[in-house]
Amino acid sequence: MRLSEIGEFGFIDRISGRVGNPEEVVVGIGDDAAVTVLSPGMVLLSTSDMLVEGVHFDLAWSDPYSLGRKSLSVNLSDIAAMGGIPKFALLSVAIPPELPLDFLERFIEGFIAQAVSYGVTLTGGDTSSSRGGFVISVTLQGEQYPEKVVRRSGACAGDIICVSGTLGDSALGLQMLIKGERSGAAIMRHLDPQPRNVLGRTLADAAIPSSMIDVSDGLLADLGHILAKSGTGARVAIDSLPLSSCFKRAVESSSPEFRRYTLSGGEDYELLFTVSPERLDDARSAAEASGTAVTAIGGITSGNGIILVDSAGGHYTPESSGYDHFAHV
Amino acid sequence: MRLSEIGEFGFIDRISGRVGNPEEVVVGIGDDAAVTVLSPGMVLLSTSDMLVEGVHFDLAWSDPYSLGRKSLSVNLSDIAAMGGIPKFALLSVAIPPELPLDFLERFIEGFIAQAVSYGVTLTGGDTSSSRGGFVISVTLQGEQYPEKVVRRSGACAGDIICVSGTLGDSALGLQMLIKGERSGAAIMRHLDPQPRNVLGRTLADAAIPSSMIDVSDGLLADLGHILAKSGTGARVAIDSLPLSSCFKRAVESSSPEFRRYTLSGGEDYELLFTVSPERLDDARSAAEASGTAVTAIGGITSGNGIILVDSAGGHYTPESSGYDHFAHV
Repeated sequence: MRLSEIGEFGFIDRISGRVGNPEEVVVGIGDDAAVTVLSPGMVLLSTSDMLVEGVHFDLAWSDPYSLGRKSLSVNLSDIAAMGGIPKFALLSVAIPPELPLDFLERFIEGFIAQAVSYGVTLTGGDTSSSRGGFVISVTLQGEQYPEKVVRRSGACAGDIICVSGTLGDSALGLQMLIKGERSGAAIMRHLDPQPRNVLGRTLADAAIPSSMIDVSDGLLADLGHILAKSGTGARVAIDSLPLSSCFKRAVESSSPEFRRYTLSGGEDYELLFTVSPERLDDARSAAEASGTAVTAIGGITSGNGIILVDSAGGHYTPESSGYDHFAHV
Repeated sequence: MRLSEIGEFGFIDRISGRVGNPEEVVVGIGDDAAVTVLSPGMVLLSTSDMLVEGVHFDLAWSDPYSLGRKSLSVNLSDIAAMGGIPKFALLSVAIPPELPLDFLERFIEGFIAQAVSYGVTLTGGDTSSSRGGFVISVTLQGEQYPEKVVRRSGACAGDIICVSGTLGDSALGLQMLIKGERSGAAIMRHLDPQPRNVLGRTLADAAIPSSMIDVSDGLLADLGHILAKSGTGARVAIDSLPLSSCFKRAVESSSPEFRRYTLSGGEDYELLFTVSPERLDDARSAAEASGTAVTAIGGITSGNGIILVDSAGGHYTPESSGYDHFAHV
């Protein structure tokens, strides 16, 4: 069945029937705007991400359920990076006429499943046909007490740089998909990343990080954003970067990919944050409490830019610092 | 110049340099999420609309400045229809590589000009390249006291149905554009609609409407949404529909287009609302105070569906009730 057979409003009715109706949603799907209530004393956090077929995903290997989950996850990761609590999502899709209704149903199921897991309610959005590919645009709203919100701009010389989980898996997974592989842990990391919202909130609630960002464009690019906003430099011990066992098995440590994936591979959706040395133990405790490993990978300096040092004490210069959607078009 | 020459972050920097920084924006463009503050006691209103090249606009006749304005206006109209106060916008764009940077600059200028006019601050969004056409996705956030918010569901039998401004101009303008014309009032109505936010808020602040919606899909379709949500019917006097002088000059009242444009033409972005007979004078005063004409066009009935009556007392049956983005694909 195609979407044209049930129509736009039929499709919206199908979606709204699957969405919960918590007390803080006064008006959900089906009016001109959603009406929602924030917790007393909290400020509004808002982030939008667009996923475009042929740019962010390829329907040759993206299953619709994971794509639905990921569309929300990339936004959840932004709320995690602010230390916020995700609350309400708006989902807009531009749908090519040839896309089967089954695909859309599975996509929505994935989106809503991930929303439920993270305590998020779908409150609105838009549907349109598309003359190009499938385009997904999500706005996620969260909340937090203003004094708990963590920005990119608070890193100070002497702070320790920490990162959650492992790096490079998503870039490896994408490469495996391009080569024709269709399963494995790295591929799942790429297709269905798990944002670190419990960790982000736990760190923020205890006011531990001096700055925080999620690793979406690659470690060097995202650390670069913290440094630019904070007016600081950084020194990173590249042999201390946390790597998964599947990554270490799949990628030769002497290969150029090894450094490229770990330093510049995007879409790991880990949290990168800075913490003063006296709060490092608190960060480790918060990490343990939230079930996510955290690794110290370097320190903030009063200089400019990023100095990469290997375990032999040598300096390393990367080929490129990260991903820019327009640098190559 | 192309966007590839300045890159994604260069483009974002250019945008953020043009955006104001009011007190209620704690963190604007340039972090993982925007941080904003709502007025005490108010709830959050949120709406998203996507505009897709080849579906909602045609670059053969859409100038970028008006397109930027309209991208916000269609969302402003949704906030107006809830009786809300527009506050914060997130703008996401998927940009084809061939689109000149000049076009984007003018598009952003139009968007920001309209934002400034309506008291809205751009707080975030996303940029991506596109393999298809230009795609625009806007989320607009507003606020209002919960008891002032106007929904679609409050229409009661006996209420008067009112509409602001005039109907059919946008559909006429689109038809003129398709025929190759490039100027005129109807064309401007289509390319650069003016949402009725002052009227919507004035009506809501005085708790005048029992229900409200904006006319984006066409009078019959949008009135149909009110009826469906309210569980009522309606009787509309089709010869009382407000028409502009340019519309009356351009469209023969005996032509099939005359009824089609006024009853089913979309994108007029007028407000359609219901009001109890004893509040009709208040509605007229509110309309006068906000400088927008309001016309009574019929009444809510306890029946089902819409009965159209002409001035001779005859019943009229329309060809189609409104626009569905997927009914024809």
